[in-house]
Amino acid sequence: MPHQIITLTTDFGLLSSYVAEVKAVILSICPTATIVDITNEIEKFNIRMGAHILTSASPYFPKGTIHLAIVDPKVGTKRRPLLIQTKHSFYIGPDNGLLVLAANRQSIEHIYEITNQKLMLPKISSTFHGRDIFAPSAAYLANGTQPEEFGPETHEIVMPKFAKIIRRKGMLIGEVMHIDGFGNIITNFGEKEVKLMNIKHTATVKLRNARLKLKFCKTYAEVKPQKPLTLMGSHNFLEISINQGNAAETFKIKRGDKVTLYRSWSNPEAC
Amino acid sequence: MPHQIITLTTDFGLLSSYVAEVKAVILSICPTATIVDITNEIEKFNIRMGAHILTSASPYFPKGTIHLAIVDPKVGTKRRPLLIQTKHSFYIGPDNGLLVLAANRQSIEHIYEITNQKLMLPKISSTFHGRDIFAPSAAYLANGTQPEEFGPETHEIVMPKFAKIIRRKGMLIGEVMHIDGFGNIITNFGEKEVKLMNIKHTATVKLRNARLKLKFCKTYAEVKPQKPLTLMGSHNFLEISINQGNAAETFKIKRGDKVTLYRSWSNPEAC
Amino acid sequence: MPHQIITLTTDFGLLSSYVAEVKAVILSICPTATIVDITNEIEKFNIRMGAHILTSASPYFPKGTIHLAIVDPKVGTKRRPLLIQTKHSFYIGPDNGLLVLAANRQSIEHIYEITNQKLMLPKISSTFHGRDIFAPSAAYLANGTQPEEFGPETHEIVMPKFAKIIRRKGMLIGEVMHIDGFGNIITNFGEKEVKLMNIKHTATVKLRNARLKLKFCKTYAEVKPQKPLTLMGSHNFLEISINQGNAAETFKIKRGDKVTLYRSWSNPEAC
Repeated sequence: MPHQIITLTTDFGLLSSYVAEVKAVILSICPTATIVDITNEIEKFNIRMGAHILTSASPYFPKGTIHLAIVDPKVGTKRRPLLIQTKHSFYIGPDNGLLVLAANRQSIEHIYEITNQKLMLPKISSTFHGRDIFAPSAAYLANGTQPEEFGPETHEIVMPKFAKIIRRKGMLIGEVMHIDGFGNIITNFGEKEVKLMNIKHTATVKLRNARLKLKFCKTYAEVKPQKPLTLMGSHNFLEISINQGNAAETFKIKRGDKVTLYRSWSNPEAC
Repeated sequence: MPHQIITLTTDFGLLSSYVAEVKAVILSICPTATIVDITNEIEKFNIRMGAHILTSASPYFPKGTIHLAIVDPKVGTKRRPLLIQTKHSFYIGPDNGLLVLAANRQSIEHIYEITNQKLMLPKISSTFHGRDIFAPSAAYLANGTQPEEFGPETHEIVMPKFAKIIRRKGMLIGEVMHIDGFGNIITNFGEKEVKLMNIKHTATVKLRNARLKLKFCKTYAEVKPQKPLTLMGSHNFLEISINQGNAAETFKIKRGDKVTLYRSWSNPEAC
Repeated sequence: MPHQIITLTTDFGLLSSYVAEVKAVILSICPTATIVDITNEIEKFNIRMGAHILTSASPYFPKGTIHLAIVDPKVGTKRRPLLIQTKHSFYIGPDNGLLVLAANRQSIEHIYEITNQKLMLPKISSTFHGRDIFAPSAAYLANGTQPEEFGPETHEIVMPKFAKIIRRKGMLIGEVMHIDGFGNIITNFGEKEVKLMNIKHTATVKLRNARLKLKFCKTYAEVKPQKPLTLMGSHNFLEISINQGNAAETFKIKRGDKVTLYRSWSNPEAC
């Protein structure tokens, strides 16, 4: 498999050699791999952020891409290392909810628990499975090792507790999945929810204590600079933004915060 | 074209999947492309910083390199997507002044407005043309598609309002083009201006309210640690620095600030 | 040499085009090089941090890898540019202590002073030898130029002043080599020192004014979240950590701080 793509999504950051060690191990086993960083700047231990970014990026990669994702606060405990095969690509990482949102959108075909020590580094540390287990797995898979050789098939997987939507009369309660570098507040309300709430020209949302009636735009520059708006972002989730400004800072919002979407401004239960 | 280089200069940052999606689209169309990040840490919406960094880096890349640059506060409006062909390389990005400084230094041969929808993603969002228009353009160009197939030739281009130099009696007024990670203050005074002002052993500059007489050095370590100096930086622009210190923080300078360069310290108009 | 790996370890950061220029020069000379960033986020001028990260990462790269490392506060002075050949790989960078820890662990075979101007850029700036001297050296080496062609062999090398361990009765005095992005405090106490101090279930360490008795763990999650611990990190150095927390912030520790390791808690000299 020439030029096999392996992506990296981690919370390792760039103040250490961890990312480089993962790449070094991959290239030692599979010298022709094309390694692409999705990002190594996931907030430390933030599985929700990792899951969101992986889900956003992975559909754009070619069929057969191997996605290595490591946000792993329980490294060294009994949480299982997994290899997930979908119709489109492969996901390798810890069984903690990080992989399953992305994998589900591409139809999961098989889930394997990685147990085959021949496909790991000879010496396995108890704190850095990214380098010692996950990186070699990705590289051997890129080299053509069959998924079923990594370990037994499993049908259990840890489901994340986040990303749920609750329905109430006239409203939907969701959450802030992500805040991007521009400060855009990205919710987990997709096209279906937006249709359900009958959003056309304006959207009514509640963020912490503020209830906002926002112009429902196609693009940021439809309102004046520094003015708030809402739109369907480039991944088809409802996004609350400020044109050329930082919505998350302005509204003091962080990942995981509750967001309520209303059918109409006058909804009595909204007050 | 094997190993065609495509560079990336964006304000996307690493807290989102945007950079990865651009790379994924490129590699889906042109799997053999070598993608090099110039940087994805341009200050959000700062076209001046993007233009400066692109102008600094692009001369060092091999002939035929494709430079993709995206700092695009007006994405989704009528600002045009451009492909510029120079004697040395190609530039792809929005028509907002980001590309033209770098392209001009390499002699512009043709400018095309990108309109050919066959060379874009099938579905075009209104907020992420980097992924949906610019990335596929770069990848198809790398694959050998001819520049004129992307759209009609144009002779208009938005000129940036920054990077101008004003002459006054005994002085030149320019600006801070860039502050690098070391805090070096990089002005837009090039070799010509430095010669014109007859700078040899010392340079007299005004930054905000401070007028400074600085040793004109060859290298940072010519003055003691924590002492200020001036020198011609590695891109041949006058730079105000502090040896092993941070000049921009010390003098409270930011990009776009006015800088005055004097013929001599005693210039009466300088006070 | 197809797919020759060249790594980069610098303090250039991503707010400038410096990293990109180094890569551009490499790819202009050796288009097939695989460039891997170890990190470009070394703290400015912090040779200790650069040396530690290079030493941690380099053993995982394949034999023959060329490591380019640039933390160079004395650029443009008489400090020498070096090419070090070890049994495993090559190191290129300034002679200031940055390379020697990593190179020593792989058995140094030859040290050359880089003087051959034919293997540099035609025009050499006095502030950016990374681009003008070190990058072309790495690329020509990747292309097959023999190490001895770069300049005369030398037997002198600047030894770093850091990373020493002092023995006192019942205690060892070392230092904080590195603080990673998670806030883990990584000391220079290796397996030998840990054995010498007879550490089994608990370790007694002094950090600034705090003396701590810490559980000696295999993995972070062995103590409750936000609780401190100590363990042998993934590079076999004693590490002081907080499970899912930031030890360096909590204990207000920075790189270079003194750390004392005691044989036992009751050591009278420890108070």
